[in-house]
Amino acid sequence: MDCPYCGRFVAHIHRNPVPTVDIIIETGDGIVLIERKNPPHGWALPGGFVDYGETLETAAVREAKEETGLDVHLVEQFHAYSDPKRDSRQHTITMVFIAKASGILHAGDDAGDAGIFSLESLPDLAFDHGEILDDYARYKMTGKRETIC
Amino acid sequence: MDCPYCGRFVAHIHRNPVPTVDIIIETGDGIVLIERKNPPHGWALPGGFVDYGETLETAAVREAKEETGLDVHLVEQFHAYSDPKRDSRQHTITMVFIAKASGILHAGDDAGDAGIFSLESLPDLAFDHGEILDDYARYKMTGKRETIC
Repeated sequence: MDCPYCGRFVAHIHRNPVPTVDIIIETGDGIVLIERKNPPHGWALPGGFVDYGETLETAAVREAKEETGLDVHLVEQFHAYSDPKRDSRQHTITMVFIAKASGILHAGDDAGDAGIFSLESLPDLAFDHGEILDDYARYKMTGKRETIC
Repeated sequence: MDCPYCGRFVAHIHRNPVPTVDIIIETGDGIVLIERKNPPHGWALPGGFVDYGETLETAAVREAKEETGLDVHLVEQFHAYSDPKRDSRQHTITMVFIAKASGILHAGDDAGDAGIFSLESLPDLAFDHGEILDDYARYKMTGKRETIC
């Protein structure tokens, strides 16, 4: 990258896909979704970017708390989704966790609303979260993860 | 980031953990390891960085081919490892795949050597690959993935 003012070479910028996490929070009545305040609009799994120096697991617990107010207990890594088109803004890779929760559900600063939905009556979902929850529903029915190729 | 020459503000640089892949290639006689030509030295699972615009799966097939000469068939996503200290050079997050292979094993340009090792007689391993292969051996014995928390 060159400096836009003096034109001299400043730094190599190597662009990598950006790691994120999403959390399927299981409750007795369904799973927790948040309504996005920022584009892309729609309902979505709670989640967000992984900070430098933070594990995937720490990021998942932090993002769940920030977006839903819930303290989550991670059960397992479900699956990672990395299609470059899954987020139209930039190439992100998400690790999706399955979790249980305690606490009182309330939408965080980045969310317009938060709610619990059964898998049979999901709202319109942003990103590839509809596909993720299709895979999740199949996994809960069969106990088997998808073969990936 | 400021320009080191003229001192003016050039760009926000938000640092993210860097996504990588590693591949446990199963053969009848054991798994495939490569001897690293570059530091950190030692034997390691074949793997490398995920390019922007590339899925995890595409990166795993490409890296396996580059480092071992083998055409791999991915069986499943095994587990992701994201401890910030797992690579002393920078914070990387690796998705570890399990794969089968065809072709002739030979070390690629980045590898000094390539070989097949049984889990009972592994050499000294770089990064956290010893821990990963401990988890893998347990998974193959029990069929159960580790609970992550």
